[in-house]
Amino acid sequence: MKKILNSPDTIVDDMLTGYVSAHSTTVKFGSHPRVIVRARSKNAGKVGLIIGNGSGHEPIAMGWVGEGLLDANAVGEIFAAPAPHIIVEGIKSADFGAGTILLVSSHSGDIINSEAAIEDAKELGIDVRSLLMYDDISSAPKGQEAERRGAPGTTFIYKILGAATEHGYDIDRSIALGAKVRDWTRTLGVAVAPGISPLTGKPMFSIPKNEIYIGIGVHGEPGIRQRAIGSASDVVVEVMENIFADFDYKTCEEVTVLVNGSGGTTLMELFIIYGEVAKFLKNHGIRIIMPMVGELVTTQETAGFSISLLRMDEEIKEMWSRPSYAPYFHL
Amino acid sequence: MKKILNSPDTIVDDMLTGYVSAHSTTVKFGSHPRVIVRARSKNAGKVGLIIGNGSGHEPIAMGWVGEGLLDANAVGEIFAAPAPHIIVEGIKSADFGAGTILLVSSHSGDIINSEAAIEDAKELGIDVRSLLMYDDISSAPKGQEAERRGAPGTTFIYKILGAATEHGYDIDRSIALGAKVRDWTRTLGVAVAPGISPLTGKPMFSIPKNEIYIGIGVHGEPGIRQRAIGSASDVVVEVMENIFADFDYKTCEEVTVLVNGSGGTTLMELFIIYGEVAKFLKNHGIRIIMPMVGELVTTQETAGFSISLLRMDEEIKEMWSRPSYAPYFHL
Repeated sequence: MKKILNSPDTIVDDMLTGYVSAHSTTVKFGSHPRVIVRARSKNAGKVGLIIGNGSGHEPIAMGWVGEGLLDANAVGEIFAAPAPHIIVEGIKSADFGAGTILLVSSHSGDIINSEAAIEDAKELGIDVRSLLMYDDISSAPKGQEAERRGAPGTTFIYKILGAATEHGYDIDRSIALGAKVRDWTRTLGVAVAPGISPLTGKPMFSIPKNEIYIGIGVHGEPGIRQRAIGSASDVVVEVMENIFADFDYKTCEEVTVLVNGSGGTTLMELFIIYGEVAKFLKNHGIRIIMPMVGELVTTQETAGFSISLLRMDEEIKEMWSRPSYAPYFHL
Repeated sequence: MKKILNSPDTIVDDMLTGYVSAHSTTVKFGSHPRVIVRARSKNAGKVGLIIGNGSGHEPIAMGWVGEGLLDANAVGEIFAAPAPHIIVEGIKSADFGAGTILLVSSHSGDIINSEAAIEDAKELGIDVRSLLMYDDISSAPKGQEAERRGAPGTTFIYKILGAATEHGYDIDRSIALGAKVRDWTRTLGVAVAPGISPLTGKPMFSIPKNEIYIGIGVHGEPGIRQRAIGSASDVVVEVMENIFADFDYKTCEEVTVLVNGSGGTTLMELFIIYGEVAKFLKNHGIRIIMPMVGELVTTQETAGFSISLLRMDEEIKEMWSRPSYAPYFHL
């Protein structure tokens, strides 16, 4: 496998060691070597915010542990959720006496392990609640939103609940805000060429030379349609029309946008894609507030991207605009 | 070519349109559509800092136009320096009455076009001086440092002169500081697999399946040695030993480090690589101050990385530590 690694058995530990060492002013290890927490916690009375997730998607989620963002991240093996006892350690580290929210991206392994962790944490007397996150419109039809997968648009929730919990929201208000953000977010991904799985050393999917997939998941889950690669403009219009057919953004005055790169698509292309998204939204009279363009949720060096939209109201906009700081967050 | 683009003729313009649109609170177009400047200039009396460079290496350099960083970036075609008249527009936009520094990464096209631009700008009465930047130890032997290419370690100069000029340094003091940073920086790159040139649609170089190149340039210029891929630890030790043989970091108390990804290497790998660099430096009793790990200077989706070291003294450390803000700067 053509990756710069040490032993396959130590990928995650080596990565975390390097990450914490590089960003020691912002993050540190928690009570377990697979838990990353904020280096400086002055959080008495704050609602805690944590996520458990498989690794291989860097910089998410550990890159967003920081001020006004996540309090903790429980890190699993590559593309596999962390075990319940690791998530419990994460929950404990994000318990500041005001309740803790465990974000769960909707994938079966994440759900199963999170549910077990929540039971165990409750037995320890921690007021922990989960918020299930889903946004990928290609994974279940309109009307069955709760069956959908988590995709890069779930990062909107990290940012907005990170700001809200820092700002003194209690747990009920935070959960309600997080659910609103989820319900107002839609994401659709496009795959261009597969990355190599560090688990198998093999491409994560296959796709003909001049074709792309519309609607692929963040672990290379199959898309819904194959098409000729075409121009950036054509591809973006198809993605945006699908998103607009799924949620009534047409009547929104303001949205924010994430154009996320899957790992092997250049920033040059992502800017071109963003330009087309901006043109499409302008044509619909919709204003974009502080968009994000970059590689946040990767699938190794997969070439591809996704577009996520979030409807904005005053509350969301306020939390979106508040300053946040983590090693790989930039707005 | 499997990239998400519109016409090949509009790549750079489309990219700049998307970039400026996404980051309109920080950057805007200058007096020419290929010049990017800071959105808010309150710079009367500040020494201006500008670079002209070929595109295709995003986020550098336009992604580092911002507060405490670059005042302007003149953007060329892909892998080609901007024409003199574009650089002149950039110089004019970074002229705040205290002189302007044009950073020049040492590549023949950059040098030729910059020299012509400087002549023209001087005729307009602007006090502009150039600072030639070079750091790639694979491109000329020790003792012939001024013959070397510019490589990712040149970004140390952007940051430190960005902070110094913001902090009130005059042009002579700024040039002297920039030269010191250059003279104390060494970089060595490693290539794993080629990216696709958007100009030709073809891989930018070729390399056998289980081999890597040590010492490759940021446009895919040939390396100096081919070797089996090996472990991250092995590869990093070879790179670090080469760097240590070239500059006497052994006696330094403090350095900063950049582990730069070339575009197609995962952040997972970059963290593992950084961990090995940190181990190597710790074994030599050298402390690392605020390192950077990420994709700053890319060669499209080329897989590979480089390691850059900068010796720190109190002046450099102070400027390195000052807050800076640009869309794709994070420390």
